[in-house]
Amino acid sequence: MEKIRRTIRTDMADESRVVGAGARTRENYGGFGEGIGVEKDGDNEVLITRVHVNNPEGERRVGKPIGSYITIDIPGIHGRSRDLYEKSCRMLARELERLIHIDKKDTVLVVGLGNWNVTADALGPKVAQSVLVTRHIYEYLPKEVDNTTRPVCAISPGVLGITGIETGHIIKGIVDNVKPALVIAVDALASRDVRRVNSSIQLANTGIAPGSGVGNKRLALTRESLGVPVIAIGIPTVVDAATMVSDTLDLIMDSMMQQAGHGSDFYRMLSRINRDEKYQMIIELLEPYSGNLVVTPKDTDEIVDYLSRLVANGINMALHENIGPKDVDRFLH
Amino acid sequence: MEKIRRTIRTDMADESRVVGAGARTRENYGGFGEGIGVEKDGDNEVLITRVHVNNPEGERRVGKPIGSYITIDIPGIHGRSRDLYEKSCRMLARELERLIHIDKKDTVLVVGLGNWNVTADALGPKVAQSVLVTRHIYEYLPKEVDNTTRPVCAISPGVLGITGIETGHIIKGIVDNVKPALVIAVDALASRDVRRVNSSIQLANTGIAPGSGVGNKRLALTRESLGVPVIAIGIPTVVDAATMVSDTLDLIMDSMMQQAGHGSDFYRMLSRINRDEKYQMIIELLEPYSGNLVVTPKDTDEIVDYLSRLVANGINMALHENIGPKDVDRFLH
Amino acid sequence: MEKIRRTIRTDMADESRVVGAGARTRENYGGFGEGIGVEKDGDNEVLITRVHVNNPEGERRVGKPIGSYITIDIPGIHGRSRDLYEKSCRMLARELERLIHIDKKDTVLVVGLGNWNVTADALGPKVAQSVLVTRHIYEYLPKEVDNTTRPVCAISPGVLGITGIETGHIIKGIVDNVKPALVIAVDALASRDVRRVNSSIQLANTGIAPGSGVGNKRLALTRESLGVPVIAIGIPTVVDAATMVSDTLDLIMDSMMQQAGHGSDFYRMLSRINRDEKYQMIIELLEPYSGNLVVTPKDTDEIVDYLSRLVANGINMALHENIGPKDVDRFLH
Amino acid sequence: MEKIRRTIRTDMADESRVVGAGARTRENYGGFGEGIGVEKDGDNEVLITRVHVNNPEGERRVGKPIGSYITIDIPGIHGRSRDLYEKSCRMLARELERLIHIDKKDTVLVVGLGNWNVTADALGPKVAQSVLVTRHIYEYLPKEVDNTTRPVCAISPGVLGITGIETGHIIKGIVDNVKPALVIAVDALASRDVRRVNSSIQLANTGIAPGSGVGNKRLALTRESLGVPVIAIGIPTVVDAATMVSDTLDLIMDSMMQQAGHGSDFYRMLSRINRDEKYQMIIELLEPYSGNLVVTPKDTDEIVDYLSRLVANGINMALHENIGPKDVDRFLH
Repeated sequence: MEKIRRTIRTDMADESRVVGAGARTRENYGGFGEGIGVEKDGDNEVLITRVHVNNPEGERRVGKPIGSYITIDIPGIHGRSRDLYEKSCRMLARELERLIHIDKKDTVLVVGLGNWNVTADALGPKVAQSVLVTRHIYEYLPKEVDNTTRPVCAISPGVLGITGIETGHIIKGIVDNVKPALVIAVDALASRDVRRVNSSIQLANTGIAPGSGVGNKRLALTRESLGVPVIAIGIPTVVDAATMVSDTLDLIMDSMMQQAGHGSDFYRMLSRINRDEKYQMIIELLEPYSGNLVVTPKDTDEIVDYLSRLVANGINMALHENIGPKDVDRFLH
Repeated sequence: MEKIRRTIRTDMADESRVVGAGARTRENYGGFGEGIGVEKDGDNEVLITRVHVNNPEGERRVGKPIGSYITIDIPGIHGRSRDLYEKSCRMLARELERLIHIDKKDTVLVVGLGNWNVTADALGPKVAQSVLVTRHIYEYLPKEVDNTTRPVCAISPGVLGITGIETGHIIKGIVDNVKPALVIAVDALASRDVRRVNSSIQLANTGIAPGSGVGNKRLALTRESLGVPVIAIGIPTVVDAATMVSDTLDLIMDSMMQQAGHGSDFYRMLSRINRDEKYQMIIELLEPYSGNLVVTPKDTDEIVDYLSRLVANGINMALHENIGPKDVDRFLH
Repeated sequence: MEKIRRTIRTDMADESRVVGAGARTRENYGGFGEGIGVEKDGDNEVLITRVHVNNPEGERRVGKPIGSYITIDIPGIHGRSRDLYEKSCRMLARELERLIHIDKKDTVLVVGLGNWNVTADALGPKVAQSVLVTRHIYEYLPKEVDNTTRPVCAISPGVLGITGIETGHIIKGIVDNVKPALVIAVDALASRDVRRVNSSIQLANTGIAPGSGVGNKRLALTRESLGVPVIAIGIPTVVDAATMVSDTLDLIMDSMMQQAGHGSDFYRMLSRINRDEKYQMIIELLEPYSGNLVVTPKDTDEIVDYLSRLVANGINMALHENIGPKDVDRFLH
Repeated sequence: MEKIRRTIRTDMADESRVVGAGARTRENYGGFGEGIGVEKDGDNEVLITRVHVNNPEGERRVGKPIGSYITIDIPGIHGRSRDLYEKSCRMLARELERLIHIDKKDTVLVVGLGNWNVTADALGPKVAQSVLVTRHIYEYLPKEVDNTTRPVCAISPGVLGITGIETGHIIKGIVDNVKPALVIAVDALASRDVRRVNSSIQLANTGIAPGSGVGNKRLALTRESLGVPVIAIGIPTVVDAATMVSDTLDLIMDSMMQQAGHGSDFYRMLSRINRDEKYQMIIELLEPYSGNLVVTPKDTDEIVDYLSRLVANGINMALHENIGPKDVDRFLH
């Protein structure tokens, strides 16, 4: 029983299944043509890619529902420059504002997904804990309300292994009672690509589908399931270890093949290796931990703290009129 | 706005409003007569008092709804003897079992009330985090179920000042989705009596009414509001500072009057002092903190941890057939 | 044995024994005359009082060793205005700079006293964890040094009940090995006065004498014991409960006597009450917790965090040339 | 500067440099012959291997100083069976007792190495926080001493990047003041082998050499440096990511070569690949994180907690006469 509990507890959402677009595939969208629009924005420090899936044809081509998928890449974020931090907060706020189409007094519910007991999965709960919460003042002390804010509430529902309750059911119950005009769901993701870990923020206005796997009947957080629009914010904080080994191995084999030359015997032999079998071999080598082993920077604790503040700032600035670009860190809980 | 936020955040439930009976008034119940039954049980180490309010006449006399109110006093708990700890776990389990009248496969929802960011208020969340959670295994992995457990789920909804959402609304939403047969709500309480702080466990099968005050429209957690029976477990962890000063002063004045003698001038003068005015004076002296100042043992952090384990053990033993008196600490999360 | 452990663990330093001067007695210094100089500075938001004990005559009168004792009162700090926070950081930095007389490349050791497991006592460890630490870069990567910093190191030695080792012995060992030019020791204090709790920063250039009591052979942190100058920074975070009750009672009795009028019988009777006996009575009433019960704001956790950042900013600005008044929160660890 | 700080902060000790023997090489010791003794003990659940390096010839062969190196492998520890946990505590205690040759009233200093802010590196500090500390009672309250204990003290010195002070210098200062008869140093290790992560406890009576690298002048914790015997306890909690990829790749290439057959062209070509170049390629692919990326189980937070309790139990049982095999978890702080 213990094993099951642990498996469930640590099942993070897969980046591709959640907000998806991602840096890897971005380059390719240009050529997709009909039903898909791609915009580049930002600069060398903060790169923004917006992919718009406009119609069923686009959906079919990209394999994602109609909607907008935005990736904010901040390759230099690890340097911890204060200026870049503040700029990133502002850019995130701006991108969020572009996705939010509700009245300025409408209520917003911020949902922090993930397990607060697992460092790399605690991003969502930390953001929910840090955003400025104001809804109770509107409800219980309406005379004290600062008119340039909006009602915002926030919750961290925990994960199935901690609560025994499907996250989607908890959120559905709250949405039915609170009736927000918008849900913003924040989650830590498992990425395929080490280079994106802790340096890429992904937004989508199509909601979020919690990781499948063991509990694969899980309720998605989408407009369909909740009845209100859902914006997802995700940051990859880990890479699955088997995936990382496998991808690295592919790169090395590609490099070997290139060195060997196209016509050579070695090239031919390497190209005959079945990459699925190879992945299976890796999975076996990483047993008994397979499925639970992840790759992270050693100082994940500190980085997740830092990124949660960045995201909370972006949300605060996007939601409240009176919180502006100069207010980085000033209204964190 | 800041002040309001803080006021709301730190508003703990008042012991008398919640589970109520309490050590102070217990002595008196004996004489109440009709509609009230009082039982004493346990021994010198673990004293148990059960007050049963049986009918409207009893309700009127005690000022509490029909139901059972149990107080477990453990005066020596501060000594941290392992034997007393284990005995207390078992006694709590036994008292809980007497209050639980559901089928052995029915689902139970454990609710940890209170603010996990405030040491003295974190009892509920710590218990919710520690109890054995099994419902997800019944739901998603039915073949893995250990048949001697029952489905248990657990949630810490936070407090109004953290989430911006009424606790009762969060719980109501979850109960509607999960449909448990019983809710067990655990909360830290503010007591009137320093001697009860961290040494008395209070149970009631009538549910729990979160502190009134600022947000006084708050939803109670009772059978009426949730549609299922609610057992409350509370432990006083603080005393309001103004109350403590006022009560101590009363005791001192009583002692002075006794010394002065009944017929003396001093007795007469002291007895003329208006005790309400005196309380008002204390409130003013304790400004600007009034309402927020509490009295606690310095090592509250450690004690609340300890007590939360004790309560979680009691709940585990009471809910699962396969967890017995010998299993203290063995099934804590 | 358990009881002893707990008694020792939670023994916080007494404000009067440590940095001392304090707001209450400040008013009186003016009249002390010879050997004592008093300066007032700051404004209504941040009030600064500097008491200089200049010679043995002053020592005798004030009951404190020759040195400077500075109190920074910030009565409005509870309002959490960002502007006041930043101003307080700068004022603290300025007062510290006035006390520091070492070369700008000399090494400084920051010592965070107190018990990180006890919320109200965790101020020192939190400051030590937050200040910018640079000494290791000077030692191991001299080429990477930013020339506008100085070598700073920081340690939290824990408390006797956690380590089993006298704090002074740990610090002495480190000072002997590291040979700093200055020690800055930060500690949470127990105050006599509720109004000063969490709103007054106290500095002294005479070092710090850890609380007496159980372990009364404790080594002081002073120039005499360590061989280098020691600046103490203290903030009262709790009031001893018995003291608070006793002082409140005195105020109430004074008020009663005033109302009764000087010549009245009641006045005479009240004035005959032995205030020491009264204190003894309070101690007994607060048993079995006596000595451990403290009065704090309920949200101590959050306040101590906030104040530790304030102090760390002040220290950073005072110690490093390149950290200026605009850099509030920018160089916290 | 930031980058340097982070590099230093997260530099964990390398398993092979610390306690060394390890499961991988164990198999080989049998054949080493002169100067080396190997004993196998325990059973299938708890496997014990003791390697004794007896003389300079043995030192030369094994590449480790004269001393005893014990590995306790507990492959099933991830299953979290309570029985296996208790058995492991007892086996660790027994192995420790075999290494401890001091009088039963001699003082022991437990040192918890590592960074409490980095989940996988917090094992040492958690153990130091959990062991029963008694020395202060012997010093300050000799009448309260329980005669069946010994004086034990404990410290977590932090890491260079947090304190700016060499760990060895802090410990040296404390040892000089406290004069223990023995130091037990506990540390989390970086392993080469995924299978050993969190499932192998390594002991050595030769002390511990903190990781080299950036701060490579670091003081070892050995009898030579401290003047008292030092027992090291280490548990691998991470695998360096580049190492893991490289080792996995080697295994895959070995497997490919085997499949291709000894005489084949493919075998020849694969065997010509320079494995050092390959490692270099991996390092580059894992940039910009290289050196900081680690592989861990996702639930490291919970596992490190669990293992720290296991180790603290083992130490408590080994050090105090009155703590026996039945007292698992009963004397944890």
